[in-house]
Amino acid sequence: MSAAASATLSELADLVGGTLRGPGDLRITGVAPLRAAEPGDIAWLSDTRYAARLAETQAAAVLVPASVEKTPQAAIVCASVDHALALVMNHFAPPVPHPPAGVDPTARVAADAVLGADVAVGPYAVVEPGARIGDGTILDAGVYVGADTIVGAHCRFWPYVVVRERCRIGDRVVIHPHAVIGADGFGYYLHQGRHRRVPHIGGVVIGNDVEIGAAACVDRSKTGNTVIDEGAKIDNLVQVAHNVAVGAHSVLCAQVGVAGSARLGKYVVLGGHVGIRDNITLADGVQVAACSCVPQDVEAGVKMAGLPAIEFRQYLREHASLRKLPDVVAQLRELTKRVEELEAAANHPTDG
Amino acid sequence: MSAAASATLSELADLVGGTLRGPGDLRITGVAPLRAAEPGDIAWLSDTRYAARLAETQAAAVLVPASVEKTPQAAIVCASVDHALALVMNHFAPPVPHPPAGVDPTARVAADAVLGADVAVGPYAVVEPGARIGDGTILDAGVYVGADTIVGAHCRFWPYVVVRERCRIGDRVVIHPHAVIGADGFGYYLHQGRHRRVPHIGGVVIGNDVEIGAAACVDRSKTGNTVIDEGAKIDNLVQVAHNVAVGAHSVLCAQVGVAGSARLGKYVVLGGHVGIRDNITLADGVQVAACSCVPQDVEAGVKMAGLPAIEFRQYLREHASLRKLPDVVAQLRELTKRVEELEAAANHPTDG
Amino acid sequence: MSAAASATLSELADLVGGTLRGPGDLRITGVAPLRAAEPGDIAWLSDTRYAARLAETQAAAVLVPASVEKTPQAAIVCASVDHALALVMNHFAPPVPHPPAGVDPTARVAADAVLGADVAVGPYAVVEPGARIGDGTILDAGVYVGADTIVGAHCRFWPYVVVRERCRIGDRVVIHPHAVIGADGFGYYLHQGRHRRVPHIGGVVIGNDVEIGAAACVDRSKTGNTVIDEGAKIDNLVQVAHNVAVGAHSVLCAQVGVAGSARLGKYVVLGGHVGIRDNITLADGVQVAACSCVPQDVEAGVKMAGLPAIEFRQYLREHASLRKLPDVVAQLRELTKRVEELEAAANHPTDG
Repeated sequence: MSAAASATLSELADLVGGTLRGPGDLRITGVAPLRAAEPGDIAWLSDTRYAARLAETQAAAVLVPASVEKTPQAAIVCASVDHALALVMNHFAPPVPHPPAGVDPTARVAADAVLGADVAVGPYAVVEPGARIGDGTILDAGVYVGADTIVGAHCRFWPYVVVRERCRIGDRVVIHPHAVIGADGFGYYLHQGRHRRVPHIGGVVIGNDVEIGAAACVDRSKTGNTVIDEGAKIDNLVQVAHNVAVGAHSVLCAQVGVAGSARLGKYVVLGGHVGIRDNITLADGVQVAACSCVPQDVEAGVKMAGLPAIEFRQYLREHASLRKLPDVVAQLRELTKRVEELEAAANHPTDG
Repeated sequence: MSAAASATLSELADLVGGTLRGPGDLRITGVAPLRAAEPGDIAWLSDTRYAARLAETQAAAVLVPASVEKTPQAAIVCASVDHALALVMNHFAPPVPHPPAGVDPTARVAADAVLGADVAVGPYAVVEPGARIGDGTILDAGVYVGADTIVGAHCRFWPYVVVRERCRIGDRVVIHPHAVIGADGFGYYLHQGRHRRVPHIGGVVIGNDVEIGAAACVDRSKTGNTVIDEGAKIDNLVQVAHNVAVGAHSVLCAQVGVAGSARLGKYVVLGGHVGIRDNITLADGVQVAACSCVPQDVEAGVKMAGLPAIEFRQYLREHASLRKLPDVVAQLRELTKRVEELEAAANHPTDG
Repeated sequence: MSAAASATLSELADLVGGTLRGPGDLRITGVAPLRAAEPGDIAWLSDTRYAARLAETQAAAVLVPASVEKTPQAAIVCASVDHALALVMNHFAPPVPHPPAGVDPTARVAADAVLGADVAVGPYAVVEPGARIGDGTILDAGVYVGADTIVGAHCRFWPYVVVRERCRIGDRVVIHPHAVIGADGFGYYLHQGRHRRVPHIGGVVIGNDVEIGAAACVDRSKTGNTVIDEGAKIDNLVQVAHNVAVGAHSVLCAQVGVAGSARLGKYVVLGGHVGIRDNITLADGVQVAACSCVPQDVEAGVKMAGLPAIEFRQYLREHASLRKLPDVVAQLRELTKRVEELEAAANHPTDG
C-alpha cells in the first residue's frame, strides 16, 4: 500500500490510544496485511491463530492485542485491533473524492427544496419539490431525491441512488450506487382474471447510521412505513419488501431477500442469499446461515440453517445423517433379507 | 394515515359499489389497517381469521365481505374487499408525482424520435434515434430509450430505466428504477481456450399491463425475442435471460432467475429466489415455492418445492422423513445388532 | 430475422472458412434457428440430436459440422458451427448503436482526465479528475468513471455503469447497464454495540476481455485489490465481494454471490444463484450446479452440487436415496416389528 501520509509509530499509537512497544520515531508509510506488507508498512494481527506470520512479515511494525506479549518487530498494543486498524487505515487512506459543497450547475434542484449548510449536489442530480437535505450531506452525480423526501445530515448518496417521494432518511446514512429506496411494493390482487395493483401509499423510514448497498432495493409500504432501524447494515443486491421492519444494528448480507411484512429484531444477522418469508418474525439476535430460507417465526438468539431453515445443530445432525443415507438404504435392504431368512427358519425349523 | 382528501362513508360506498351499514354522513379522513387505524380512518378485513380485531380497532368504519354480518362500527359490505380497498386507498393516496407533459429542456430526444400526445420526458432522459413513445407515457429522470425501440401508451418508466435498442414495449407498462431491458444475453462458446460472445441480434417484447421491478433485468435474445406476455408481474432484482418466454399474468417474485430459453405458461407463480433451469417448460398455472430450483419440465397446475424442486406434497413427506433421519440411522444400527443376536441364536440354538 | 445485409452462400462460406455444399450464388438474406427460419434464411445445426429438423426447416441453407454428411438443402460444413454462427450472425446483425467518437456537449469530463484516440463519451457521462480512458473506448449515456480510474482501450460501458475511484480496467472490457465497480466492501466490526465500517482503501482490477453483466456489483478491497482476471464472464446481478479473486476465463452465471476473499481458479463455472463462502478457494476448473452453496475449498476439476454443496455424484446418490426416505422410514418400522416377533418367538419357543 503506497502511503498517502506517513506518520511516526508514536503518532499512530496516540491516534489509536494504544501502547507503544519499540522506537516511537519509527516512520510508517503505509498499512498492509502481514503477508503483503513491505518495509515501512504497519500490519495487524486480529486473529492470534495467524501469529506465526509475525516472524515472516516484512512489516516495520504491527498492531496486536495485549495477549501477544512479544513480536519480532515494533508493535502497538491495542484494546481492539479492529478499531485501531480502522483508525490507521483511515489515516493512510487516500481521501475519498466527492463533489464540492454547493449545487453543481447541471443539477436540478426544485425551487422549494431546502438544502442545509454545506450540502453538495453533484452533476445531473435531481432534487424534487418539497425535499429537504440536511447539513453536510453529499448527493453524488445523478442522485434522485423525490418530492417531499427528507434526508438527514452528513449522509452520502453515491451516484444514481434513487429515493422516491415522501421517504425519511436519518443522519449519517450511506447509500451505494444504484440503490433504490421507496419503489412501489409488489402487491396485487386478482380481479376478473387480471392482477390489479394494490396501492402503496406509505413510505420508507431509514434510521441514523444505516448503510445500504449497491443496487439494493427497499420498497415503500402499503400503509405506514417500511422501516430500517438505526445502525442496520444492508449489503449489495438485497431486497427489502413492503412493510418490512429491519431492527437496529441488524446485518443483511448480499442478495438477501426479505418478503413483505416480515419483522426482524435487533442484531439479526442474515448470511448471503438468505430468504425470509412474508409476515414472519425473527426475534433479536437471530442468525441465519447463507443460502437458507426461513419459513416461520424464530425465537431470540437462535441460529438457523437450511432449506427450509431449522435450528443449526439439528441441521448439522440431519446433514451428517444424509451423508449416510445411501448406505442406510442398502443396509436396510440387506437386513430385510436376513430377517426374511430368520423368519423362514423360524417357520420351518426342521429346514435349518 | 393522514388524509389527503376526506369523504363521507356514503361517498366511499358509492366509490366501491358496496352496501352501506351505518351513517352515510360519517366523515372518513384516511385509511389504515385495523391495528394502526385512528379515529376517522376506514380499515378493512380481508381475512376473516382476524375478525377479533374488529372489536379492538379505533377505526370509524371498515370494509368487510358479506360473510361478516355484524361489526361494532359502521361498515361497507363489499363483493371484493381487496378491490374496494384499492379504490379507497387510491382515493386517499397523495398524488404520485411525475414530470409534466413535454420534454424537459435538459433531456436529449433525437430529432427523428416520435413522441405521442402528452408524453412527459424528465430531466437528463435520453431518447435515441428512431424511438417511438406512445401517448401519455411518462419517462422519468434519466430514463434511456434506445434506438428504434417502440414504447406504447400510458407507460411509466421510473428514473434510470434503461431499454436498449429495437425492443417493443406495450401499453400501460410500468418499469421501476434501474431496471434494464434488452441487455445482451449471456451466451458464449469456447474457441481456442477463450470464451467468444454469441451475438444477440434479437430483442425483447413486453406485452400490455406488464410491471417490472427495480433493478430487474430482461436480456435480449440471440434471435427472435425474449417475451414477457401481457399482465405478467415481475418483482425487483429478477433475472430473465435471453430467449425466455414468460406467459401472460405470471408472477415472478423478487430475485427469481429464469435461465435461457425457459418457457413459462400463463398464471405461473414463482416465489422469491426461485431458479428455473434453461430450456425447460413450466406449463400454465405452475407454482414454485420460494428458494426452490426447478431442473425439468413441469405439467400444468403442479405445485413444486425444493432443491431440486419436486412435487410439493412429496417434498413435505420427504422433509418430514428427513427430520427423523438421525433417529432412523440410530434405529437401524440397533436393529442390526438385534438381528445379529437372533442369527447367532439360530446358528447355535443350544446356546439360547 | 429480416436481413440487414444479404450475401451469397459462397461469400458466407468464405467468411466462416467453411466448405460449400450447394450453389455458391444462392442469396441468403438472414439467419434464424431451424424451426423459425423462413425461405432465404440460413440456419444452423450445433447439436446433431436435432438433425431431424433439417427435413422440416424452411431455411435455404444450413451451417453443419462435418459429421452431417447429407442435408436436404444447401450447406456450409464448418469446423466449429458455434464459431461460424457467430460470424454469420455478426454479418446479418443490425449495427449496435453507440455514441459517436468525441465528448457529448452535456458530458462532464474533468480538465485533467486523459482521453485516448476516438473515445466516445455519451450524454450526461461523468469522467472525474485523473481518470484515463484508452483508445476507442465507448462510455455510454450517464456512465460514471471515478477519479484516477484507468480504463483500457476498446472497452464498452453501457448506460449508467459506475466505476468508482482508483480502479483499473483492461482492454476490450464490456460492462452492461447499471453495473457497479468499486463500491465499498461490506466489512464492519462491532465497537461499543455498534457496527463500525472497516475502511476499504484498496481497489478493483479487471483484466482484458472481461464482461460484466447488468446491475452486477464488484466491490473494492480492504487493501490490495479485488481481481477479475482476463476473459472472465460475469452475468447480471452477480455479487463479487471485497478482496475476491476470480480466475481467468471463469464464468459466473446470473445472481451468483461470491463472499469476501474467496478465490476462484481459472475456468471455474458457477451456475445461477450459486453462493460461495468467504475465504475459501475453488481450484481451476471447478464447476458448481445452479442454486448450490459451497462452504469449503474444492479441488481442481471437481463438480459440485447441493446445499451445502458436495461432490456431484454423491449429490445424485443422496437425492436418489432421499426420494426413498419416506419408504425407508415405513420399512424400518415394519422390519422392527418383525424382529420383535422373532425375538418373542426365540424367547418363548414353545409359543411358536
